[in-house]
Amino acid sequence: MLYWTMGARHTAARTTGGTPPVANVVVVGGGFAGIAVGRGLANSEVRVTIVDQHNFHTFLPLLYQVATAGLDPADVAYPIRTIFGGAPNIGFRHGRVREVNHAANTVVLDDATELNYDHLVIATGATAAFFGIPGASLYAMPLYSLADARRLRNKLLLALEDADARAEQESVALTFVVVGGGPTGVETAGALAELISIALRRDGLRLDRRRVRVVLVDLADRLLTAFPPSASGYAARELRARGVEVQLARSVVEVEERAIRFADGERLETAAVIWAAGVTASGTLAQGLSVAAGPSGRARVGLQLRCEGRDNVWAVGDAAAIPSNSSAFCPQLAPVAIQSGRHCAEQILHAVRGEPLTPFSYHNKGIMATIGRRAAVAKLPQGGVIRGTLGWLAWLGLHLFYLVGFRNRLRVLINWTWRYFDWPSGPRLIVADAETAD
Amino acid sequence: MLYWTMGARHTAARTTGGTPPVANVVVVGGGFAGIAVGRGLANSEVRVTIVDQHNFHTFLPLLYQVATAGLDPADVAYPIRTIFGGAPNIGFRHGRVREVNHAANTVVLDDATELNYDHLVIATGATAAFFGIPGASLYAMPLYSLADARRLRNKLLLALEDADARAEQESVALTFVVVGGGPTGVETAGALAELISIALRRDGLRLDRRRVRVVLVDLADRLLTAFPPSASGYAARELRARGVEVQLARSVVEVEERAIRFADGERLETAAVIWAAGVTASGTLAQGLSVAAGPSGRARVGLQLRCEGRDNVWAVGDAAAIPSNSSAFCPQLAPVAIQSGRHCAEQILHAVRGEPLTPFSYHNKGIMATIGRRAAVAKLPQGGVIRGTLGWLAWLGLHLFYLVGFRNRLRVLINWTWRYFDWPSGPRLIVADAETAD
Repeated sequence: MLYWTMGARHTAARTTGGTPPVANVVVVGGGFAGIAVGRGLANSEVRVTIVDQHNFHTFLPLLYQVATAGLDPADVAYPIRTIFGGAPNIGFRHGRVREVNHAANTVVLDDATELNYDHLVIATGATAAFFGIPGASLYAMPLYSLADARRLRNKLLLALEDADARAEQESVALTFVVVGGGPTGVETAGALAELISIALRRDGLRLDRRRVRVVLVDLADRLLTAFPPSASGYAARELRARGVEVQLARSVVEVEERAIRFADGERLETAAVIWAAGVTASGTLAQGLSVAAGPSGRARVGLQLRCEGRDNVWAVGDAAAIPSNSSAFCPQLAPVAIQSGRHCAEQILHAVRGEPLTPFSYHNKGIMATIGRRAAVAKLPQGGVIRGTLGWLAWLGLHLFYLVGFRNRLRVLINWTWRYFDWPSGPRLIVADAETAD
Repeated sequence: MLYWTMGARHTAARTTGGTPPVANVVVVGGGFAGIAVGRGLANSEVRVTIVDQHNFHTFLPLLYQVATAGLDPADVAYPIRTIFGGAPNIGFRHGRVREVNHAANTVVLDDATELNYDHLVIATGATAAFFGIPGASLYAMPLYSLADARRLRNKLLLALEDADARAEQESVALTFVVVGGGPTGVETAGALAELISIALRRDGLRLDRRRVRVVLVDLADRLLTAFPPSASGYAARELRARGVEVQLARSVVEVEERAIRFADGERLETAAVIWAAGVTASGTLAQGLSVAAGPSGRARVGLQLRCEGRDNVWAVGDAAAIPSNSSAFCPQLAPVAIQSGRHCAEQILHAVRGEPLTPFSYHNKGIMATIGRRAAVAKLPQGGVIRGTLGWLAWLGLHLFYLVGFRNRLRVLINWTWRYFDWPSGPRLIVADAETAD
């Protein structure tokens, strides 16, 4: 069964007058966690409004492929209204939350309208953490929204075009730096190396492949620290075989517009710095939403996922610091977001129905990272590692499975098939450029 | 045979030293005309550089479907480098032309680099003509680039979201006005009416369909004046059946930010004014390129497609005022662009080889416009008209046939199939919004 698709279409009319008052649930954020809350409450007795600044849900795990021109933006996005088209009790509101008035139980949007809630769910996700490194927030490019991915794609493709134009006169060197050796950094570096190979081979750019560098740096002495060391070694070897320079135990001290500085004094000129170094909870969560903040600005919740000191305010996914029995808090991963969202929906129904709440417990399903064609690693819940072609096929299958909408799955499959067989084209379009000044 | 795809891949090395000097051809513009020139010169003895401000070719006839969320931007765009990936003598240069130095035979790009040419081809296309109507260039939205289409799509979808949000409190009316009853206006109005129906039915917007108006206005007393009157009547009936208000013999005197004014004094409040009223040659053609300008700013050319008074400067497609035997000048249509581009390539080879030039003559293949599902009209070269399902199927087939790249054809087919059967989703994404300020 596919997780995100809705069940049979319900055409029941909206609940109106004559019936007991309906509880209003406002969910802020339409990512994995927010959608899971909506899914859990679909066709129930509560009325749900999902608020998001975008009218679509973004499949973040494949964003790096949009950035490296392997997928189109529309392949990884799905309109939120359409996800819940079959559920008459789920509404969508396009907008940003300006503040929460806990005393009045209202959310104020940026167009000054107010939404009343009986239960509020904070599912605002995470954004890049820059750890106060000078210049990082200004010049490094994170990958946490479709707009980020489009911007990065344009920057990468424009850098290649610009280098090609300069190659008319001179020998050109071009360096891209990826900061962060976790799954996002490893995946982005691998895909970027692949994009460069394709662009040079198929598009006839006048660049010397050996002078176009992709450098992956991390503070730790191995990649993928959440995986066993054997997986780290495998990932480093596979990346190097694809032309990525892996530099470990290197500390970034400053990012400039066209360069990056390391603690050992080296200054490397770069065409782009891609930031995959870590996440923090989105925006000014603690201030704007007036809930207690924990590590990385995440909302502190109890085991029932309620924010500390609040009866009817819940937090889920990356935005929440969820207690865990194996470590201090649950990791900021898609499975945690989906599971906590689903659990939160159940708790809200318990609360509305006057039933006792139950504690959340994260069911670890393992983690994965892909390096490139036929190369991926997966860490199983029992600790075992799958790698190589088998890991890659598992990675492909799972990502297709979790993508929202059959149409998106079909299109992603087509794009992947194209890239795998190295057929011409693929979405190497510089769409936002001087023309629109975006 | 598919027109745009290249033949077998040639892997011959670039022509360098030792051989007689190679003629340089610079083609400004990668639209239908520019690509046809490149295609005609591929694998010949000249060296070609296509210059475009975008790294992709845009299939303009389907732009209105991107604007009305029927297709994705990437469906109608194809990287120019990839089109010519198999031809070693065709290069691409990403940039804009700042000026032409005819005395030195150089083109100056906006990054100040100069390209030498032996032959220069102006294939800069057309943009919207606003006829000096106050406010039109400021507030009306044309449809001549992928960026235009994305902007319009965002505006349309945001207007629907905004109306839905206001519908919480009040009864909301929403009007969209399409100016121009030619093929672009008819197609856009029909597709917009379809988008609204789908959005209301599938996305559960709280709007009254009868209060969401699509108004198509034209100065003439019938639609599609290039077609016989029977086609005009058919188009008007089909549009009205789809909920479009067709208002003829109406003259627009001003466009405001949220309204449009007519000569009869009426002022209509609008969420968007879509401008499909006509075209003029792109940019400051006559000034920047220093060639004689004819009607609508088009470059005046002789029957050999050479610019007046120039031996080695040619103009093709929408940017050229090409003499015609049936009327004063050839119409600004895709087939004229393709045929004139192909002819120009032949003439350049004649000139390089010292052979006599031959005059261009436009081979009329008819014109088409689609109104919606199973409703289109085609005017055959002999003057006959095909309409209804047959016309629609012909329209679908031809557009798929002329789209560049098999991958794009496959994706467009998927998107069309989705929309035809009214399956959920489709690319109704508001991608560029407040987040990127674009």
